[in-house]
Amino acid sequence: MTLADVLPAEAIVEPKGRYLADLMGRGVQGTADAVVLPSSAEEVAAAMRWCYENDVPLTARGGGTGLAGGAIPVQGGIVIGFERLNRIRQFDPLLWRIQVEAGVTTGDVHRLARENGLRFPPDPGAAEVSQIGGNIACNAGGPHAFKYGVTGHWVTGLEAVIPPGEIVTFGGPIRKDVAGYDLRSLLVGSEGTLGLVTAAWLRLVPAPELELPVIGLYRDAEAGISAIERVLASGVVPAAIEYLDGATLSYSGDAYPFGLPPEAAFMVITEADGAAAEARRVAAELRDALADDAVAVHAPTEPSEVSELWRWRGGAAFAILAQRGGAFSEDIAVPLDRLRDVARETLEIGARHDVPALSFGHAGDGNIHSTFLFAPEDLDEEQRADDACHELFQLALRLGGTVTGEHGIGWLKRGQLEHQLGPTGYDLHLRVKQAFDPKNLLNPGKKR
Amino acid sequence: MTLADVLPAEAIVEPKGRYLADLMGRGVQGTADAVVLPSSAEEVAAAMRWCYENDVPLTARGGGTGLAGGAIPVQGGIVIGFERLNRIRQFDPLLWRIQVEAGVTTGDVHRLARENGLRFPPDPGAAEVSQIGGNIACNAGGPHAFKYGVTGHWVTGLEAVIPPGEIVTFGGPIRKDVAGYDLRSLLVGSEGTLGLVTAAWLRLVPAPELELPVIGLYRDAEAGISAIERVLASGVVPAAIEYLDGATLSYSGDAYPFGLPPEAAFMVITEADGAAAEARRVAAELRDALADDAVAVHAPTEPSEVSELWRWRGGAAFAILAQRGGAFSEDIAVPLDRLRDVARETLEIGARHDVPALSFGHAGDGNIHSTFLFAPEDLDEEQRADDACHELFQLALRLGGTVTGEHGIGWLKRGQLEHQLGPTGYDLHLRVKQAFDPKNLLNPGKKR
Repeated sequence: MTLADVLPAEAIVEPKGRYLADLMGRGVQGTADAVVLPSSAEEVAAAMRWCYENDVPLTARGGGTGLAGGAIPVQGGIVIGFERLNRIRQFDPLLWRIQVEAGVTTGDVHRLARENGLRFPPDPGAAEVSQIGGNIACNAGGPHAFKYGVTGHWVTGLEAVIPPGEIVTFGGPIRKDVAGYDLRSLLVGSEGTLGLVTAAWLRLVPAPELELPVIGLYRDAEAGISAIERVLASGVVPAAIEYLDGATLSYSGDAYPFGLPPEAAFMVITEADGAAAEARRVAAELRDALADDAVAVHAPTEPSEVSELWRWRGGAAFAILAQRGGAFSEDIAVPLDRLRDVARETLEIGARHDVPALSFGHAGDGNIHSTFLFAPEDLDEEQRADDACHELFQLALRLGGTVTGEHGIGWLKRGQLEHQLGPTGYDLHLRVKQAFDPKNLLNPGKKR
Repeated sequence: MTLADVLPAEAIVEPKGRYLADLMGRGVQGTADAVVLPSSAEEVAAAMRWCYENDVPLTARGGGTGLAGGAIPVQGGIVIGFERLNRIRQFDPLLWRIQVEAGVTTGDVHRLARENGLRFPPDPGAAEVSQIGGNIACNAGGPHAFKYGVTGHWVTGLEAVIPPGEIVTFGGPIRKDVAGYDLRSLLVGSEGTLGLVTAAWLRLVPAPELELPVIGLYRDAEAGISAIERVLASGVVPAAIEYLDGATLSYSGDAYPFGLPPEAAFMVITEADGAAAEARRVAAELRDALADDAVAVHAPTEPSEVSELWRWRGGAAFAILAQRGGAFSEDIAVPLDRLRDVARETLEIGARHDVPALSFGHAGDGNIHSTFLFAPEDLDEEQRADDACHELFQLALRLGGTVTGEHGIGWLKRGQLEHQLGPTGYDLHLRVKQAFDPKNLLNPGKKR
């Protein structure tokens, strides 16, 4: 039997370029015999059954915005895309819940929630393009994960297809469940190596009335990170705590909407949210906590200014990329008391490998995008940037952290997991993979 | 080699009665050859290695307050208790985190957090006796899980011993980690069947300044559950949404601190929390939402009254038990739109089996303690109450819910899991068990 015998013609397309790569870079492009675009969970199951019967690798992709190569079909076979599996199956705004298929974009979930006075808090970078299934497969984070948690925290149930091609559900539109092992959490963040998510039940919350960023600008990282510590000690819970270091500001600061004082070489962005009075109270506390030693404190209050700030913050990655044309931006996470080490050692690692270095990211979660720049035409510099990334992963482990806080292991970080988990933990990781996917056909070569 | 060759003498005690049962009732008591009370993770590993080498079952127990028989050694062997593994390993109040060993009571974690302006939100019933390791093994909930989530949500890292006796860590004092599969979440709620938690890194949050309960009293369940729906639609996030039905009030209402009007036959307890002004604002919204059709609305504001309310609410289970001497209190969870069905059908199930029935619990999470009473000397009535529980489990599944929202499967609900997960999901559940515990020596007979 061929694939065409088990799937409708419109669900099988030629393996075009955009299905063979993601945003990892490094010149890695996969190969595939076909791309399957199912429009139902049953078609996903049919594709997996065919792959399992014929020993063909099956690599899932969402919006293709991953940064770790998780969606690249490195061992050929079939690529499965979810853009046609994109229905809202159920929406109960009064009960704060929605059931969506895997191919719905995260931006659409945001919009639908907002139009009904609700909020789906996870806000990874490429929300308009990335799909909820991909966000679940990577357990995507974002700036507001500090207060609201990562994607998995908002998933109460999953429908998924597991080898050799069975549709299963874990959880559902329920808020508590301790019956079976937490296989829902196991699928979240599994990067398409255990099963393929076809639909998810998501929790929502009432939208905050007001979001009030408070931004502190400092002369150096030491002053800025001390300010973050004061924020934590102040007794309020900010919605976000971000930092951008001096090099980041030097590349992106011109577009900063509220004007960067010349002596500013470190930025801390916090945000207060909630009902109007509460957001204002928290913003005042944040302002107090950020003020010591600050070059300036900015506290925009107009909704248009607030959007402008976050648009600028979201665009920082592009400003950085534009600087030399190439950038490897990682996502290590460390205990909060090691933030200073990350800020300092990122620069030292860059210097050792002779590449421009910078760091920015989700400071409140200890999850920092240490970044190394290169010119794409300079293959030696690109290699040095890649080497710097590998030294960074070692740094994360030395500081008691993780090599990946939100991007995933994918293909980029292959080999790192064993160092992080140790032999016993890694063996257990492989045994769990074996329990789900005994033929190792789901996204082979990844998450290991 | 005997157990005495691998453990110090003081770590091995005689298997006394209190180590052989928990609060499940049903006259089930286990048997054991010895009770091991380790004082380090290394001693836990030594005990497990000995059990694995000698094919001896190993059943873990925390405070022994479980209601599903999860800690009963039904197949003999060794019982392992954690009361001597009870150190605070690290406490960083300014970074909102603590590392505790498994035998520390949840009440001690609460106290330590509170004394430092922080809060550990999970508040299961028997916090003063139950241990954090047991709470993690059951993923315990409680009234405030509505806003704050269950125990697992506050666990960022685990140290555990897995077969055949290796110490592993998953996560740590970090707030984000997507490197390996989420084995941390897999251990949470695994009821001692996959590995034994020896220590945990917990997240904390700044304590709310004020907690303001708002209580609505209604003539019947229909009016009360409509009030809960209005609360959800009001746009505020209460810290808790509980209900107690008419039968529950008839047994416990005399001790209700604010006086129960005679026509009150259903109670909804909500709570506002946060900074003073915010808590007052939310409390006012809750009062508005609860007022329609209410017989009375009570809104205590004195801290002593607030403690008194929750003490009374916590004592409701004992008032119910005292009524006839015996009570089976379950913990199904259903989608929020099925609360009415649970309230009504619990009574119908009781009537069909000719036992007094009632329901109360964590309504906002759809997690209800449907309860059937019996006189302990009336073995036939006890059997009918047990039969009623089994019909209740069927109800949970029919309503799209789970047989257990916070107590666990344990021994009591054996056989239910396959119905809930279906053959494919159940098979996967067993394969995960096999991956961790190939000899099936960890708490055999449970969680299946």
